[in-house]
Amino acid sequence: MSSSRIRSRTQIAIVGAGPAGLMLSHLLARAGIDSVVIDLRGRREIESTHRAGILEQASVDLLAGTGVSDRVHRDGDRHDGIELAFGGGRHRIDFRRLVGASTRLYPQTDVFVDLADARERDGGDVRFGVGDVSVDDLLSDAPVLRFTDAGGARHEVRADVLVGADGSRGLCRRQVPEAHRAQYSRTYPFAWFGILAEAPPSAPELVYHHSPRGFALISRRTETLQRMYFQCDPGEDVADWSDDRIWDELQSRVGANGHRLVEGPITSRSVLPFRSFVQEPMHHGRLVLAGDAAHTVPPTGAKGLNLALADVRVLAEELERVVAGGDTAPLAAYSERALRRVWKAQHFSYWMTTMLHTLPDATPFDVRRQEGELAAVTGSTAGSAYLAEAYTGWPGER
Amino acid sequence: MSSSRIRSRTQIAIVGAGPAGLMLSHLLARAGIDSVVIDLRGRREIESTHRAGILEQASVDLLAGTGVSDRVHRDGDRHDGIELAFGGGRHRIDFRRLVGASTRLYPQTDVFVDLADARERDGGDVRFGVGDVSVDDLLSDAPVLRFTDAGGARHEVRADVLVGADGSRGLCRRQVPEAHRAQYSRTYPFAWFGILAEAPPSAPELVYHHSPRGFALISRRTETLQRMYFQCDPGEDVADWSDDRIWDELQSRVGANGHRLVEGPITSRSVLPFRSFVQEPMHHGRLVLAGDAAHTVPPTGAKGLNLALADVRVLAEELERVVAGGDTAPLAAYSERALRRVWKAQHFSYWMTTMLHTLPDATPFDVRRQEGELAAVTGSTAGSAYLAEAYTGWPGER
Repeated sequence: MSSSRIRSRTQIAIVGAGPAGLMLSHLLARAGIDSVVIDLRGRREIESTHRAGILEQASVDLLAGTGVSDRVHRDGDRHDGIELAFGGGRHRIDFRRLVGASTRLYPQTDVFVDLADARERDGGDVRFGVGDVSVDDLLSDAPVLRFTDAGGARHEVRADVLVGADGSRGLCRRQVPEAHRAQYSRTYPFAWFGILAEAPPSAPELVYHHSPRGFALISRRTETLQRMYFQCDPGEDVADWSDDRIWDELQSRVGANGHRLVEGPITSRSVLPFRSFVQEPMHHGRLVLAGDAAHTVPPTGAKGLNLALADVRVLAEELERVVAGGDTAPLAAYSERALRRVWKAQHFSYWMTTMLHTLPDATPFDVRRQEGELAAVTGSTAGSAYLAEAYTGWPGER
Repeated sequence: MSSSRIRSRTQIAIVGAGPAGLMLSHLLARAGIDSVVIDLRGRREIESTHRAGILEQASVDLLAGTGVSDRVHRDGDRHDGIELAFGGGRHRIDFRRLVGASTRLYPQTDVFVDLADARERDGGDVRFGVGDVSVDDLLSDAPVLRFTDAGGARHEVRADVLVGADGSRGLCRRQVPEAHRAQYSRTYPFAWFGILAEAPPSAPELVYHHSPRGFALISRRTETLQRMYFQCDPGEDVADWSDDRIWDELQSRVGANGHRLVEGPITSRSVLPFRSFVQEPMHHGRLVLAGDAAHTVPPTGAKGLNLALADVRVLAEELERVVAGGDTAPLAAYSERALRRVWKAQHFSYWMTTMLHTLPDATPFDVRRQEGELAAVTGSTAGSAYLAEAYTGWPGER
């Protein structure tokens, strides 16, 4: 059974080849730092999982400005605002006017493709489809990553620092002993029912609907394919929902605010869970966590992918200091810097969620108060700007 | 037993001689409109009930600008900001810089005294200490107010419009049949423990403390008497709280944010309930409701007195239209205009409450998220301005 391991050394070993892991590897390479990235999944498997994405200004700048690809500028739709719909009408939040920033509608799947292509183009060491992954010696000066590559060869890679970018169900988060970390979480009593429909767009920008029947989000993907969501029970079964039933539900929610959707065949339906999670600190010995491995946000504020990219932007800077100086103090600095943004984003996601969704035990007072809040936010330049700066990722701040 | 009633006629009959009723009578008199105001309580009784007050800019302007009194300018402390304390530090919200407005610390009791004096000075018809109050014929063209005056004489006053400014436990709200109104309410799982202490001020402005042990508010009254509050269980018994226990609790909460209070003998202690309530619409036939008779807000945002004054500022305008035109459409306009502000204020009070208080079932996630929100608000000019404009009463808007 056992064969000898191929032993090697790198500066940074990264578990997880999603956007966080690949972007980190890319940024490190630009700084002259070697890394190895591994992932249990095959590249085609990741590419074929559709995931939506709304990129903050800084995420767009990171992709295009560091030479990953300028495809986000060519293929990503620039959105200069969103609409909040409630109480029978629609109200625009104008990002450009309020805070001079925009977002780009650009699927996470495309972010992955751009990053994987860039790493390949630049000769990065990325291993997809590996198995038997384990990490060890986290408190030593040379932590180790072990895995079996797609060809069956067994590897043992020593590194200066291990990075866990392996998502919310990955192994790295679980390597931190209970006594050395705190976990914070919140579950929500609803989920999102998401669909893809073959139809032209029903609105030029995203429309967030507050309605007596609950929340709905009218998003878009292309000129012929639209993405829409509506609040549902977390136990909802997609098999119970015909096209007609879905359109009835969506039309009834958005119709309350005078909006009418263009219908079409529904090609995909799924239930997205809602959860908030943070593990603190984001480092332990020479292991650091980045992206979903350290935190999960509900989808309402579209912050998940952006937080992952913000994490590794900061992490790359601090890892340069580790490599230059030798000690691990910069890993604590990374955790502290990253967590400041994480908690602001957790709050923003919670705020957007609770302002727009109907809780199962909501009283009529709660619904009227939500409408009072939506009127206050949309009726105030300061309130609109406060929302806009969070939505676009706190432009001007690092 | 029965004696004949003294019948009279006025234009506007007002039930309740609190700030709302008296201010309305004052504004109507300036517009040449007659009114009668009655109250079950004696004037000395109202004057001896201490009630705190933070006046919005517009409330100050209403008192001083319409000739009630300029005492608010002489005796009221102008506050150009507040502090939010959390996570170990104190952060100032600078109202003047952010929105060009201020508040005045001026007790509701003094507002009452100024208004009662002004009505007396101007020959207003205000009857304190009445009994046997009833209202009738609300759907007719001449609704009627009946009462027995302090001297025992029985009165029947017909008016164009009856105004219920008799507070949350008054009779007027209950005159609207269930089929013709909606009631919205929310109770909170905590109350405020309020004290008056003989001590010099512990801070130049109000300090709102978020702490692991719950909320505390450090307010002030004079140079030698201070008002402070801390979040407690609604069933708390003041008899269980010695001076020492109260100071220990307060010092522990504010100490978490590096604040130390100057102690002194505690001369008053009470438990203030927390409730949100709105009755809609604020009119029924020729009866209209104003102030606490129509809505209650929790004390966190200091909006109760200000909402009452904002109600009657709008109501006086609409009553002028009723008197001039005869029909009651302006009463519906009053309700609609007033409710827009009411719901914004309900939301603001709810927001300040939930951002700063610890819910009994709060998880560690909830507490960290609150700190994330407080960091977001105080760290953002837009967020701070959004709070400042609500706190100062949406200056520039009527």
